[in-house]
Amino acid sequence: MERQSRAVSEKDEYQFQHQGAVELLVFNFLLILTILTIWLFKNHRFRFLHETGGAMVYGLIMGLILRYATAPTDVESGTVYDCVKLTFSPSTLLVNITDQVYEYKYKREISQHNINPHQGNPILEKMTFDPEIFFNVLLPPIIFHAGYSLKKRHFFQNLGSILTYAFLGTAISCIVIGLIMYGFVKAMIHAGQLKNGDFHFTDCLFFGSLMSATDPVTVLAIFHELHVDPDLYILLFGESVLNDAVAIVLTYSISIYSPKENPNAFDAAAFFQSVGNFLGIFAGSFAMGSAYAVVTALLTKFTKLCDFPMLETGLFFLLSWSAFLSAEAAGLTGIVAVLFCGVTQAHYTYNNLSSDSKVRTKQLFEFMNFLAENVIFCYMGLALFTFQNHTFNALFILGAFLAIFVARACNIYPLSFLLNLGRKQKIPWNFQHMMMFSGLRGAIAFALAIRNTESQPKQMMFTTTLLLVFFTVWIFGGGTTPMLTWLQIRVGVDLDENLKEDPSPQHQETNNLDKNTSKADSARLFRMWYGFDHKYLKPILTHSGPPLTTTLPEWCGPISRLLTSSKAYGEQLKEDDVECIVNQDELAMNYQEQASPCSPPARLGLDQKASPQTPGKENIYEGDLGLGGYELKLEQTSEGQSHLN
Amino acid sequence: MERQSRAVSEKDEYQFQHQGAVELLVFNFLLILTILTIWLFKNHRFRFLHETGGAMVYGLIMGLILRYATAPTDVESGTVYDCVKLTFSPSTLLVNITDQVYEYKYKREISQHNINPHQGNPILEKMTFDPEIFFNVLLPPIIFHAGYSLKKRHFFQNLGSILTYAFLGTAISCIVIGLIMYGFVKAMIHAGQLKNGDFHFTDCLFFGSLMSATDPVTVLAIFHELHVDPDLYILLFGESVLNDAVAIVLTYSISIYSPKENPNAFDAAAFFQSVGNFLGIFAGSFAMGSAYAVVTALLTKFTKLCDFPMLETGLFFLLSWSAFLSAEAAGLTGIVAVLFCGVTQAHYTYNNLSSDSKVRTKQLFEFMNFLAENVIFCYMGLALFTFQNHTFNALFILGAFLAIFVARACNIYPLSFLLNLGRKQKIPWNFQHMMMFSGLRGAIAFALAIRNTESQPKQMMFTTTLLLVFFTVWIFGGGTTPMLTWLQIRVGVDLDENLKEDPSPQHQETNNLDKNTSKADSARLFRMWYGFDHKYLKPILTHSGPPLTTTLPEWCGPISRLLTSSKAYGEQLKEDDVECIVNQDELAMNYQEQASPCSPPARLGLDQKASPQTPGKENIYEGDLGLGGYELKLEQTSEGQSHLN
Repeated sequence: MERQSRAVSEKDEYQFQHQGAVELLVFNFLLILTILTIWLFKNHRFRFLHETGGAMVYGLIMGLILRYATAPTDVESGTVYDCVKLTFSPSTLLVNITDQVYEYKYKREISQHNINPHQGNPILEKMTFDPEIFFNVLLPPIIFHAGYSLKKRHFFQNLGSILTYAFLGTAISCIVIGLIMYGFVKAMIHAGQLKNGDFHFTDCLFFGSLMSATDPVTVLAIFHELHVDPDLYILLFGESVLNDAVAIVLTYSISIYSPKENPNAFDAAAFFQSVGNFLGIFAGSFAMGSAYAVVTALLTKFTKLCDFPMLETGLFFLLSWSAFLSAEAAGLTGIVAVLFCGVTQAHYTYNNLSSDSKVRTKQLFEFMNFLAENVIFCYMGLALFTFQNHTFNALFILGAFLAIFVARACNIYPLSFLLNLGRKQKIPWNFQHMMMFSGLRGAIAFALAIRNTESQPKQMMFTTTLLLVFFTVWIFGGGTTPMLTWLQIRVGVDLDENLKEDPSPQHQETNNLDKNTSKADSARLFRMWYGFDHKYLKPILTHSGPPLTTTLPEWCGPISRLLTSSKAYGEQLKEDDVECIVNQDELAMNYQEQASPCSPPARLGLDQKASPQTPGKENIYEGDLGLGGYELKLEQTSEGQSHLN
Repeated sequence: MERQSRAVSEKDEYQFQHQGAVELLVFNFLLILTILTIWLFKNHRFRFLHETGGAMVYGLIMGLILRYATAPTDVESGTVYDCVKLTFSPSTLLVNITDQVYEYKYKREISQHNINPHQGNPILEKMTFDPEIFFNVLLPPIIFHAGYSLKKRHFFQNLGSILTYAFLGTAISCIVIGLIMYGFVKAMIHAGQLKNGDFHFTDCLFFGSLMSATDPVTVLAIFHELHVDPDLYILLFGESVLNDAVAIVLTYSISIYSPKENPNAFDAAAFFQSVGNFLGIFAGSFAMGSAYAVVTALLTKFTKLCDFPMLETGLFFLLSWSAFLSAEAAGLTGIVAVLFCGVTQAHYTYNNLSSDSKVRTKQLFEFMNFLAENVIFCYMGLALFTFQNHTFNALFILGAFLAIFVARACNIYPLSFLLNLGRKQKIPWNFQHMMMFSGLRGAIAFALAIRNTESQPKQMMFTTTLLLVFFTVWIFGGGTTPMLTWLQIRVGVDLDENLKEDPSPQHQETNNLDKNTSKADSARLFRMWYGFDHKYLKPILTHSGPPLTTTLPEWCGPISRLLTSSKAYGEQLKEDDVECIVNQDELAMNYQEQASPCSPPARLGLDQKASPQTPGKENIYEGDLGLGGYELKLEQTSEGQSHLN
């Protein structure tokens, strides 16, 4: 081996700095290409490749280029050196090589059969996905935005179903995938492709849990553009967000679940401990996220921060992000924390912001959401070629492919049947088929898989996950629009009309007449919550009335006066009109941003956007990411439902 | 040494991930504290500690806590191991320690007398400033925002002076500091504190160049709030932005300037090569930045991206950032590139954006600017305690302290004298004193110093730089307001009034009457440029008229038709009214965002913000970062100039 000097001269320092710039530049260009392509597609109403799929394609192409255009720079091929004086592995190792001292930094432990991990290609190494960045930087804005722009009414009306799909459904999915994969693994051991002892049942369960994290970003974006039936939208949306959290906690619980004897045996104690752990994590995360939102609400209420929109926006942003980070740092799950932080912020804090900040925060999170999503999907495309330890195994891939479909079916159909026994508004067959179809895998599955790629089985899982992500996003994502047509699911839904159908006073009566106690119970719970919220929580956390001095008992007098805002005195208690309260609630957040006509150029072919939205129009897609493209549909929606042609 | 197992179990993986969250969380809290403190100060009009100084204080406190509350985790104290089989230092080193293979990653070369670099405290290591993040992520938004919100008229009117201060002034400052430090270094060698050969004259020059990068973020923010005289503002602003670029390129040029013989000798060839290099870098960066802006302008003009504000904003953001990264990747200077990219975007692209995007982009860059600045200053505060190789040397610090003042004086006073020979509107003494006073050092000096801290002299430079940054930001930043009063510099300047004084037609006549050819020349250059811009560049890059079909010669017919926007046909050529053109130009960007009164709460003590700005009101501080705080001043400004009481 020839001598290669690694002296770091000044020039090298600069080159090192430039390399960081090159890396970022590559991503920038990928995103720019993606944006231009999206625009092209939207302009031509080409709905068969959505932006996320496009981002992946560009990432893939770039990964190819990087892989075959950059040569490995080291000829070092994995020789192991003995440094006998060491008795432990320090975090920093100083090595004397030909009379020059070099510093090496601990990276990780290598298992014996994995001795040739890298070809020493630093560019590829740098480009490989860093789960830390994903989890702590890219993911929070996406989830927060989901919570912040959540249409609370629809969500909470369907809450039972959503929770069922998210919890029970993910558990079912995990077990089914685990069982099927275990079968395939046995076959692989039989065929000699795996050694006995490489892949335990818990590993299969682990794979099952990470593969259960559905990620229908693509599908929801299409639903949004087409104004698909809001009930379907909210079911899919709610399920996907919560099952991400469930999957993350599940993978953690499974990986620390270590029965003392044979890992293939079932240890009841460890199992129940994991379950308890799981529930505790969820509850704790929910509490933490809400706590941060409450703090923000109080801060924005009792200080005059609204004078300083930039400070207000900054504070709002930082506190929300901190909700995520704190939960992660405390060993809870950041996703649940930041999701409910977003919901709570929208419910309370939003009302305290200055109008300037309201706009700023919404636009900021929309933008960050947009960027983060596209970055993630680019990253995933890149990873196919930049990750240097892929392990392709046809049997495993086939098995996984089958498993996710079977598992999705076992998740959706039985649970929908059970839910329909209890739901007033049944989930129709076409919805169930669409939900079955929309079980795309995406970023969460990918990130969970890449977190640990030490051993070969783990690498196999990662490779398989990546391929399944590609497949589901491109094929199923692309097939969403035709599928909607085929299943005759209504699009272009005008929500005002929808609202008139749904919980209006006459339906409340129908509820009361209904003999099914669980429905009446849930309606009553709903009313109770809204009453409580209206009388106590809102007045404490926001400036709305009724003033606490009237609703709280006498002995709370001093505290009531302290906490009540001066404006609250103007508002009366709306005791019985829960519907009115609910409507006001949604409307406060829903004044649609003025659709802005394009400045100067005459827009050939596209109609002028007319609609300044009045507060009376509740729109589930409020905050439409400015993705536009649907103003033509407004003419149709006034005629009522329409099907996609 | 006891055996410490470094087996990376699943739990360790999760902890590793949590550590990233903890780090980010620490920063979040620091920033939140900073924001709350800023708000407190602004509320009480406490101008002696500005937000940047406050951010540094919190960073300092946190650094203290981290330093003394976290124990080093390794007892490894810097023993050097011999791995005799190696003949070169690979990028990845696999080591067999007690039968387990560990992977180590190449970090850097250690000079012999620096063997005990780290105590192995991983938390502190993680928190230490990463120049790469600073240069590629935090810095671009700040500089871009500076360019994007630049008041072009004032800037270009004072362009000569600004360039003089930035180029000549920085060079002078660099040489003066270099000479003074060389004297002190000689003294230190004499006193035995340094070995001969550690610190060459080129090292002193290097220190001089990085210390010449002034960073009056603090001062400008105060100027902005108080509406200080716009000429002073623009001189200081322009000088600081450009001298950052000059300093960066200068440090690079100096560090690669290697005369073949004695490094203390002067090699004319190498010198002129460096100068040529320097100028080439500047020109190339300018060209690159403008090129990206032109591309963005063309893209936004010829596509209907304005239908999709999110895509438009995303594209705008990514292309601007790419300007910076491309320049860095190409070995040019990103700062100059992104600065002029910002200016060009504001001049052309801004007009093509939809009104939604106009607001979005401005708010986005304001927000990023705000965050990035505060992060940087927090980082700096942290670095005092988290950087583990500080080298305090009283003589060097004293020398540097003296040097920066002498150098600033040698920069400002002589050059102002020279400029006043040629300027119509002289730079008065109080301005010069204020500029002298405002030579704060900040983030750029810090980042340039931290880029290389290998050897002890370099560490000494870094430590000294850090201390000087603290000192100047706290003492001089805090002293800005009293200084303004003492120097009787006018504040609360209403720019409308200012404009009426300045280049109005009667002053143009004064110019023509003036016998000084250089002034007439510069005015004529100004007119020529604006004419050219108005007739050709604007019509090509934006939708404004006059249509190219009328201004370009006949043979350009087809191209003219291709490039001319349909709207352009409506506008006539405004041949002679340059002033009108210039006014329109500035006004197009200047419609002030509606000052938004706070929603619900009655604001006790603060007047309602009244002013919806009419387009006729040009305001240098357009895009005021929402920092507010000056609405009370509006009453005063209508009375004309006022002094700060």
